[in-house]
Formats: sequence, structure tokens, C-alpha cells
Amino acid sequence: METIQLTESRETTAGFTTVSEPRITSPLGFTAAGMHAGIKRKRKDLGLIRCEVPAAAAAVYTMNAFQAAPLTVTREGMAVESRMQALLVNSGNANACTGDEGLADAYRMRKAAAHALDVPEHLIGVASTGVIGERLPIGKIIGAVPGLASSLAVVGHEDFCRSILTTDTGIKAAEVRLHVEGREVRISGVAKGSGMVHPNMATMLAFMTTDAVIEPAPLHGLLREVTDESYNMITVDGDSSTNDMVTAMASGLAGHRPLTENHPDWAAFREAFAFVSRELAKMIARDGEGATRLVEVRVTGATTLEGARQAAKAVVGSSLVKTAVYGADPNWGRILCAVGYSGAQLDPAGVTVELGGVTVVEGGRPAIFDEGAARRALEQPTVEIGVHLHEGVEQACAWGCDLTYDYVRINASYRT
Amino acid sequence: METIQLTESRETTAGFTTVSEPRITSPLGFTAAGMHAGIKRKRKDLGLIRCEVPAAAAAVYTMNAFQAAPLTVTREGMAVESRMQALLVNSGNANACTGDEGLADAYRMRKAAAHALDVPEHLIGVASTGVIGERLPIGKIIGAVPGLASSLAVVGHEDFCRSILTTDTGIKAAEVRLHVEGREVRISGVAKGSGMVHPNMATMLAFMTTDAVIEPAPLHGLLREVTDESYNMITVDGDSSTNDMVTAMASGLAGHRPLTENHPDWAAFREAFAFVSRELAKMIARDGEGATRLVEVRVTGATTLEGARQAAKAVVGSSLVKTAVYGADPNWGRILCAVGYSGAQLDPAGVTVELGGVTVVEGGRPAIFDEGAARRALEQPTVEIGVHLHEGVEQACAWGCDLTYDYVRINASYRT
Repeated sequence: METIQLTESRETTAGFTTVSEPRITSPLGFTAAGMHAGIKRKRKDLGLIRCEVPAAAAAVYTMNAFQAAPLTVTREGMAVESRMQALLVNSGNANACTGDEGLADAYRMRKAAAHALDVPEHLIGVASTGVIGERLPIGKIIGAVPGLASSLAVVGHEDFCRSILTTDTGIKAAEVRLHVEGREVRISGVAKGSGMVHPNMATMLAFMTTDAVIEPAPLHGLLREVTDESYNMITVDGDSSTNDMVTAMASGLAGHRPLTENHPDWAAFREAFAFVSRELAKMIARDGEGATRLVEVRVTGATTLEGARQAAKAVVGSSLVKTAVYGADPNWGRILCAVGYSGAQLDPAGVTVELGGVTVVEGGRPAIFDEGAARRALEQPTVEIGVHLHEGVEQACAWGCDLTYDYVRINASYRT
Repeated sequence: METIQLTESRETTAGFTTVSEPRITSPLGFTAAGMHAGIKRKRKDLGLIRCEVPAAAAAVYTMNAFQAAPLTVTREGMAVESRMQALLVNSGNANACTGDEGLADAYRMRKAAAHALDVPEHLIGVASTGVIGERLPIGKIIGAVPGLASSLAVVGHEDFCRSILTTDTGIKAAEVRLHVEGREVRISGVAKGSGMVHPNMATMLAFMTTDAVIEPAPLHGLLREVTDESYNMITVDGDSSTNDMVTAMASGLAGHRPLTENHPDWAAFREAFAFVSRELAKMIARDGEGATRLVEVRVTGATTLEGARQAAKAVVGSSLVKTAVYGADPNWGRILCAVGYSGAQLDPAGVTVELGGVTVVEGGRPAIFDEGAARRALEQPTVEIGVHLHEGVEQACAWGCDLTYDYVRINASYRT
């Protein structure tokens, strides 16, 4: 299984360098492991990340009113001291809508990891993804954890990545390195998710590690901010799931002075952290169920940031735009239409739309454009849709994918 | 082409009787016509409804920020005295995003009809549906209007119905009769729309006629109210279009005392009017692009009407629920998930979900149910999904359809 490749990236890498072979275990202090515990028929389904010290940690959770048991348990543990030393993740079963028994199962998962790693339970995060409403095969999980723990290693990165996947077609991982006070700092992350992906998070799990020195409070503030401009700006099918969670663990082993907003290297660290988050988010969108293309919608000239985000999400989430992209049909009318109902403040006569570099709408009206060139822009692995509202200075970017026959096929028969 | 059949209806018909062969021209004073003017390649594309007196009229328009030229023109005419004597409608071209020239074209359409029918321009409503961003072949339309006007007849119902269709697979029409002060009153309506259908209206046109005696003000109030519980509660793909409009014309030829909320027969009239609106809305949902089934989601026990509507719309609009229905997969997890992110106030442990008559979720957890029976419920022409929140007394119903391969096929190549 290949790592999801983003064929291009508009991202600036000023202030940090990207790593071609990312590992969740690159930051100092982290090891990982993954195995087949028997939750799924064949593939790996149980993964573990461990930090050799209790890491400063932060987490954000789905907005869905139905929150899966592992989220409740992780949130409760984080409430103690906002630190995490290990994360136990299973795929194949979401442990959602499973009531008190499901909650008890999540606690058992946590207890098993705490016991195997000899750390307090509140330092263990748990996460699950897969089918909703069925009890976890908790016996299999508890039985497998000791072996999983004993296989923790820096080379465990790929096994871990595989163990958290469901309908994903590839591994999602990104890593950057930067210097803080002249010392090398690593920021790495892995993610899973393809269906049910939407703003406010979805069946999407992302785990980030760093060896930067940063207290839980600033780390949490950073994670919240960055999540709104990365994970919360992707959509595959508009559905937000019950299990989404993004966590960040900072081992602090890089040994510089603690990072806060006042630290001279904060801006560089923030940009590097945001870059990893955006890369993972885009990989998830690119791997949307049935997707053949990544769609990037950049809205500029909005009066408010919220309006820019609404417009970008409306376009990238429109089934009609998504099918038009699939058909490589430069149907700019559907793009205008989505912008029109997004709620963003606009004057129709001021809107410009670009496909790739091709201006297809100017002043809210069709421009004379080269149909062939526009069509080619829609056939790129990454389709760039630009919308300029000419109202203000705010902008936002959203990512999604095309809507294909395979999306229908995959979701018309997920359980069977 | 058949009229869209709703295989079943939970609706009560107390106080009125349904008409098996509805005609937009049944109410006293109305005639209609439809023809091929050459906007489309072959099919009828220009339709006209005329009332022999200036009818009391009301209209509601799309919420989309991009409003097509004909809406601007119709709104302007209605502003004069809230009356309408004729409606000229074309399909094949939406006259949207066409700027000043498009606006001039809409005025020319109106002028042509006013001239042919010898009525003031402000009494002519115009509507368009079809491709966005292309100029109308206004010459063809102006040339065709006189012949269209001369063919106006009570039997013109079907020609008119055909002339307003785009990707519709069938005619949408409904009619009821009731008694006001002992006199027979007719309420009839026709509609078009299949793609881009969503709350807040879509490429959806509905024209209602009645011979009831009612002033514009109460008629407008009634139309607004009823639209929120019918046309605004259907969704096919979540996209709201630039051209939606619903109009109501009341000839007043039934000759009873004017209907107001204080009239003893108001309740009966309101229910009859709402029934026709719901039937048309359901026909549009049933005819959603690529749809094989009508999906009806009834949410009960909500704390607020808005919450009930949000939850019903979230479930009926979920791509994952829609594909599950297509696959006849009783995937109640996706239904709970949609309710969970709808924003409706709920306690997960209190939610019940039914498919057809089969309870699949009780207290927010999977019930033991007959998988075969649930599957059969999803294979019905009308799939009934019931969600009870057990929080309050408010309820709402939303209608949609399944998401199929054909939806992708139709929309990946609409223009080609």
C-alpha cells in the first residue's frame, strides 16, 4: 500500500523542510506498533503509539452529538493533566452507539494498554474507527495488547499507519523539520479517513507527534486554531462522524526553551505545525471514497473569514460541482450557484471564478475561455478552483474530491 | 411521459377530495398552452398559463444570492399590485448569470406575452429553467409567443406541463377540490424539478392555481407558510438553484366571500392548499435525478420546530443515508450520525429510529430487529424513516431520494 501522494503543493516551506519518508516515530521519544488482532478478517486493526515520557498533549473531538465511547474515555483522561504517554487505536469497529457496555469496553482497552506499558490509565488515549453499533471484540483486543506493546519500535511507523485504516486506499503521513533556538525539531503526523469526511471532523483520525518543548495550554490553542484551517476544511460527503479525533503529543526532548506565542520561533513552529495538518487533511480529501481527484477551492476577497470558509466549503461540498469535476465539465454555473447559497456576503456582479489558471467567470458572468484548457484543468490530479468575491481581504481554502460511481458503489454496500 | 405517481400517501384528505387527473386549468378562469419554440433540440420548451381575470397572486423566490433575471422581472411586476394574469415559462435555458442583456431578455419575454394577451406587462410573470450562463434565444421566444397565446385552452394542461421540464422524467401535477360556503373550489398545481433540489428551493418551479376568492395578502401569507413545510423540506443533492420560484394565482371565480384566517372554511382551505404543495414537493423528490425511491423522513419529539426540520433535512440529505437506501442497507448508524450533526437538541440515549415499521434503534442503541424486514422496508417505492427524539412535541417531515449511479452519470455530463 502506497502513501497518498499529493502531486503538487502550493504550500510555502519557508522556515521548515519537508521529509520525504515521514515517520510518526521521527520526533525524539516516540515508538509505534501495529498488528492484526482479529477485529477485521485479515488486515491490521490494532495500533499503538508510545512516548518514553508523559508528553504534553492536546486533542479535539467531533462535534457530533453522538460521541463514541473512546472519545469520552480519552477526554476524561486528558482532563487530569493534559498529558498523554500512549495512544491505543483500533480499526474495524467504531465502538459507537454501544451504550454502557461500549464505554466499559473503551475503559478495558485503556486499562490493558496502561497495564502493558506500566503507565497511569489517564495517560492512555484510545480511539476506534469502523462499523457503528456493534460491540468491540474486547477479548481479542486485551489479549493482543501485551504483544503489541512488546513490538513497539521506531520502525513501527508503517505497521501503525496500516492498523488504523478502514476504506482508505493508502497511508497518510507527513513530517517536517525546523530549527528552534538552533536545535532541530521534528513535527510528524499520521491520519486515516476517507468517507464521512466533512467540516467539524468526520471518521477521521489524526495523530501528531513532536519533540518540541511546549506546554499543554499553548499546544491545545495551536491545535484548535490549525484544525479550523485544515481538518475542518475538508469534505468528502458532508457527513460528520461519531469518532473523529485529532491528538498532538509533544515529548519536549528537543530541549529548547518552552514554545509560547512570545517565543521568537513561535511563528515558524506554528507554520510548520499547520503545514503538517494541512498535508494530512489534503491526503484525506484526496483519498475520499471513490475519488479520482483532489479538489482545492480557494476563496479570496471575502468580507469575513467565516464567509470565505462558508463559500469554499459550499463549492467543494456541492454534489453538482463534484460530479462536474468527475466529468471534467467546466460547469462554472454550478460553482457560482454554490457560492450563491453559501451565505457569504457577495455582489453577484463582482465574482470571478478560475479553473486552474483559466478565468471562466468574470463580473459574475461567463468569460470567453478556452473550453479545452478548462477541461484539462479539471483533469489534473489536483483541481484548483479559485473564487474571488472582490468584497474584502479575507480568504480560505477548502479541500474535497470528485463524486464518482465508485463512491456510490462503496457506500451502497459498506456492511455487506 | 407519465405523471409521477406517489405510490402511497400518509396524507389525510379530510375536508377535500383529490382529483385523479389533475389539470392546472381546472380552476375556473384558467387556460394553458405549451409548444416547441426551438430553445431545446426537440422537446417542448415554452409554456403559458392565462387567467381570464387579473388573479390575486403570490410568489416566493430562491434564497440564492445569484437570482436569475426572470425572478427580478416577476418580482418587480408583482410589486405593482400583487396580481398576475399570465405566466410565460421557458425550459432549456435558465437566463441566469446573463447580466444586463439577460435582464433585457426577460423584459422582452414579458413584453411579448403582454402584447399577445393584451394585458399590462406587470401582470405577466416570467420563469426560466435550464442551462446557466447562456443568453436566451430571445428571437425564437418572441416569435413563438403569439402562436402559443392563440393555442391557450383548458385542454392545454399537458402541453404546459411538458414545456417546463428539464431532466424530469415525468409530469408533476396535483389537484384537490373542496367546498367553501357550499360552493366547489378547485386548487391545482404543476411543478418541475429534479436536480439541484434542496431546502430554500432549487431548480424547482411550481405554479398553483385556484378559483377561490382570496386577497393577495392572505394568499401570500399562506404560500410562505406552506412553502416552508413542503417545497423547502425536499432535497435531492443539497444544491439550491438560481431560478426557483413558486407562484399562486387565485381567479376568485368561485364566488364565495373572501377567504381570510377568520373565514370558517379557512382551515379546510389551508389544509387543501398545503396538501397540493406537499404532493408536488414529494413528486419532485421522487423524481430526483437518478432516484429509484422516495425517502420520507419524519422526525418527532423535538424541542423546537426548527430542530425537527434540521434533523429531518440532515437525514434525508445525507449522502451516506441516500446510498444506504439505494443499497437497501438498513445502516441505522448513518441515520443516527446525521441526526447527531443536524444541530437538533437531543440526548443520544433517547433516540428511536424506525425503518418502515421496523424499530432498528431504541434508546440510541441498535435494537434486535429482523434484518430482512428492515431491508424490505428500504426496497419500497416510498421509504419511511422515522426518528423520535423523545425531547419535546415538535415534528417535521422531509422528503428526498436515494443516491444512485445514475445521479453521477446524469450530472457528470449534463451539458454534453
